[in-house]
Amino acid sequence: MRIPLDRQSETPLYQQIESYLRQAILSGNLSANTRLPACRQLAHDLGVNRSTVENAYSALEADGLVFSRMGSGTYVLQQEILPGTPSQSIQHHLPLWQQSLHTHNSISTSEMVEEMLKTGGHPHPINFASGVSDVREFPAEEFRKTLQTVMRRDQIDALEYGEPNGYAPLREGIAHILASQGLQTHPESILITAGSQQAIFLTSQVLLKPNDTILVENPTYSAAIDLFRTLGYQIVGVSMDNQGMQVDRLEKLLQQHHPKLIYTIPNFHNPTGTCLSSIRRRQLIMLAERYNVPILEDDFVGDLRYEGHAQPSLKALDPGGQVIYVSTFSKMLVPGLRVGFIVADGPVYESLLSYKRLSDLATSTLIQRALDAFVTVGRYQTYLHRSCQVFRKRRDAMIKAIERHLPSKVSFDIPSGGLFVWLQLPNGISANELLPIACQEGVAFIPGNFFFIDNLQGEGWMRLNFVSQSVEDIEEGIKRLGAAIRKLRTLK
Amino acid sequence: MRIPLDRQSETPLYQQIESYLRQAILSGNLSANTRLPACRQLAHDLGVNRSTVENAYSALEADGLVFSRMGSGTYVLQQEILPGTPSQSIQHHLPLWQQSLHTHNSISTSEMVEEMLKTGGHPHPINFASGVSDVREFPAEEFRKTLQTVMRRDQIDALEYGEPNGYAPLREGIAHILASQGLQTHPESILITAGSQQAIFLTSQVLLKPNDTILVENPTYSAAIDLFRTLGYQIVGVSMDNQGMQVDRLEKLLQQHHPKLIYTIPNFHNPTGTCLSSIRRRQLIMLAERYNVPILEDDFVGDLRYEGHAQPSLKALDPGGQVIYVSTFSKMLVPGLRVGFIVADGPVYESLLSYKRLSDLATSTLIQRALDAFVTVGRYQTYLHRSCQVFRKRRDAMIKAIERHLPSKVSFDIPSGGLFVWLQLPNGISANELLPIACQEGVAFIPGNFFFIDNLQGEGWMRLNFVSQSVEDIEEGIKRLGAAIRKLRTLK
Repeated sequence: MRIPLDRQSETPLYQQIESYLRQAILSGNLSANTRLPACRQLAHDLGVNRSTVENAYSALEADGLVFSRMGSGTYVLQQEILPGTPSQSIQHHLPLWQQSLHTHNSISTSEMVEEMLKTGGHPHPINFASGVSDVREFPAEEFRKTLQTVMRRDQIDALEYGEPNGYAPLREGIAHILASQGLQTHPESILITAGSQQAIFLTSQVLLKPNDTILVENPTYSAAIDLFRTLGYQIVGVSMDNQGMQVDRLEKLLQQHHPKLIYTIPNFHNPTGTCLSSIRRRQLIMLAERYNVPILEDDFVGDLRYEGHAQPSLKALDPGGQVIYVSTFSKMLVPGLRVGFIVADGPVYESLLSYKRLSDLATSTLIQRALDAFVTVGRYQTYLHRSCQVFRKRRDAMIKAIERHLPSKVSFDIPSGGLFVWLQLPNGISANELLPIACQEGVAFIPGNFFFIDNLQGEGWMRLNFVSQSVEDIEEGIKRLGAAIRKLRTLK
Repeated sequence: MRIPLDRQSETPLYQQIESYLRQAILSGNLSANTRLPACRQLAHDLGVNRSTVENAYSALEADGLVFSRMGSGTYVLQQEILPGTPSQSIQHHLPLWQQSLHTHNSISTSEMVEEMLKTGGHPHPINFASGVSDVREFPAEEFRKTLQTVMRRDQIDALEYGEPNGYAPLREGIAHILASQGLQTHPESILITAGSQQAIFLTSQVLLKPNDTILVENPTYSAAIDLFRTLGYQIVGVSMDNQGMQVDRLEKLLQQHHPKLIYTIPNFHNPTGTCLSSIRRRQLIMLAERYNVPILEDDFVGDLRYEGHAQPSLKALDPGGQVIYVSTFSKMLVPGLRVGFIVADGPVYESLLSYKRLSDLATSTLIQRALDAFVTVGRYQTYLHRSCQVFRKRRDAMIKAIERHLPSKVSFDIPSGGLFVWLQLPNGISANELLPIACQEGVAFIPGNFFFIDNLQGEGWMRLNFVSQSVEDIEEGIKRLGAAIRKLRTLK
């Protein structure tokens, strides 16, 4: 135990020891039944006389903070824990440098909405604000068994530092899955990351400096806006229609802003659910080539298609290393594992790998080994197929519920895949005004403005996740949403 | 399957499909026995006639690439895989932006040395270059059981996104362990990170901009130098003696360079193994306060003490939120789990959390839950006690072996804890010249210059890890080192 002692202080050493331990016990940091070091040991550790420690322990015992058991040692007694955290008590004399820190949002939009939903106090709240798929669909028990098999098979190897670009068999497995989905690549072009968030972070950090410009669809993934803003980039939006990014407006923006990167979600876009049309895909790549701008393709749920024809990924259409492709196991399989990946060719791969090493050395090898054993091509296809069946039903349920329970003046396109319905409210209804009322009714969504660069836009829109709730809850949740809209109207 | 088709192309669609599949099969991306989608399904996915797909499949079958099994489908046949990766073939027409990327070292010093050792070709190489403790000491089987228990107990919860600052019970557990080791803190002041590398990355990113100055001990942890250099900081070194950083030289440097951060390893310093003396600890904090500079304390193996008195951590001596404390489970317990933590008070905690979210949202909750269940205060103390016993013996073995097998003119201080002996070679012997010869003899170390800001310094030094090899291998490895030194001398 390394108790800080001040030998220059006028306070006797035994009192310093006593006071450290007292504070640790009363704050709960040393919890009931923790054994304190033997007096001899602590005296040696601290370089003090044994009697000094004995005096400290006696004083604590006299106050009922510890008790000694003959021949066994000194133990902490159960205490009433004092309120007040060290960080609270510290606020009074903060160093100057702490006062000038810029603090950014450290809470995500969906967490904020979840908080509001809780505050709403409904006994059975229904949340359409999630950004991920339905974790309850994940075969956790099968995964547990896989983890066991892997730990038994690899033993201590499963716990060593792994290769910094990722566990080789997992990279091979991903290459096979991607090929089976229509994207040909090579394990050496794949870089494993801590979820797609890290993949986007690394790519933008490698390609942009503060004040550089990034082009994004407007609206787009809200966490990407937060990220790009915090990293100090200029964000320029390209507007969208029901065919995805309006690529015909792109050339002018490229000439005007000289962006260093185009960030796009061409498949089942977040939040709008649209797919970039085939012609626009080729135009986008052609323009990026002509203006020498890399494309970051975020394919977060590209395979979750419920109908219609498959569109090739931009990466599959790109012969020249223009496109950096990012995807993840978090959205479709399971969020908590935090495994995503980048597919990139050419020198940028080395740059990404080098930045990955700087930022966290490597992603947990145990989780990568488990995923490798778990996600075979066959199992992935089966799981994908089953997910698509379940999610298609939920989408249909949501559309029917919207038609049944919401005013006829709402409008939306039916998404052919992905996770979201992007819904426009009747004229004059603000999603932000609606949200607290909806939360009281027991239903939540994400207001549209969170997805726009200028958050005064999108006021009349909302994003509804249709995959994360059961068919019954979807029906009930949309019903509540209808009630909330009626309530808001009577208030106005 | 999203095969990219070009409907404007003169190549017939069936040939485009055939050629995509052919390439996927010959490159090994579609491996033997993979089932291709049914013709009807693929035709639907791609929006082509069923006969188009059938023609493509027939052509592939005629060339012996696939075979069809009645009523079951079309399968890939075993092929000889063509060499040549897509990334190689792409190099010819790289986009311009790719050519201007700065590529940094994407290989670490210890990996480089490990490569050299392999190249040396010795049948039983002994590696003293590692930066971590001995993974073989870790009770992997116990950990496997804990993981099982946790998966059974938490089920799908173990796989959800967790709290971004870390799994609350783990943060509580760490607070208890820290208190039992002499550092009082609060779970709300603890931020879980992906190893201490991420902790250092986050702290420096939050506190410094490119061209800002960071003060470090010289020599210091080589990965930290790489990190700070790549992030564009000015690195200023403070020289060291056998009491650690020469704090009496600090004030002048503070006045001269106005650093934004002081990075220090006060306990069992990497690479030198020294501990900052008690008086200097207080002086360091006082100076940091006076000049309004935060301290980043890297306590990577602070508890691995084999003798002598315990020094309180800087964080424990700091009442005012000046010190940001970083430690990890990677060095002592197990590297592959990638779990470290920051202890910070005041607004900087929120800034760190916010940057953590941006860079990877959160660290795997499953691993955190397993660690929480595994690392109780009692088990930590037991494991620490056992590790110290084993490692002390290894240290003693290395010192004896050095005295026995190396020239009497080598010099070093006996480290009272940690992982490393920092050894000065006899005059005129360069560790860099020695390394390839040593690797041929079957032993490796890290040459000293890797730890200096100016890597022309430290030429006569080397870092030896004494905890990662058995007593027998230490004896044998140092013997080989002696042989290598003699060999180098005869060559000169």
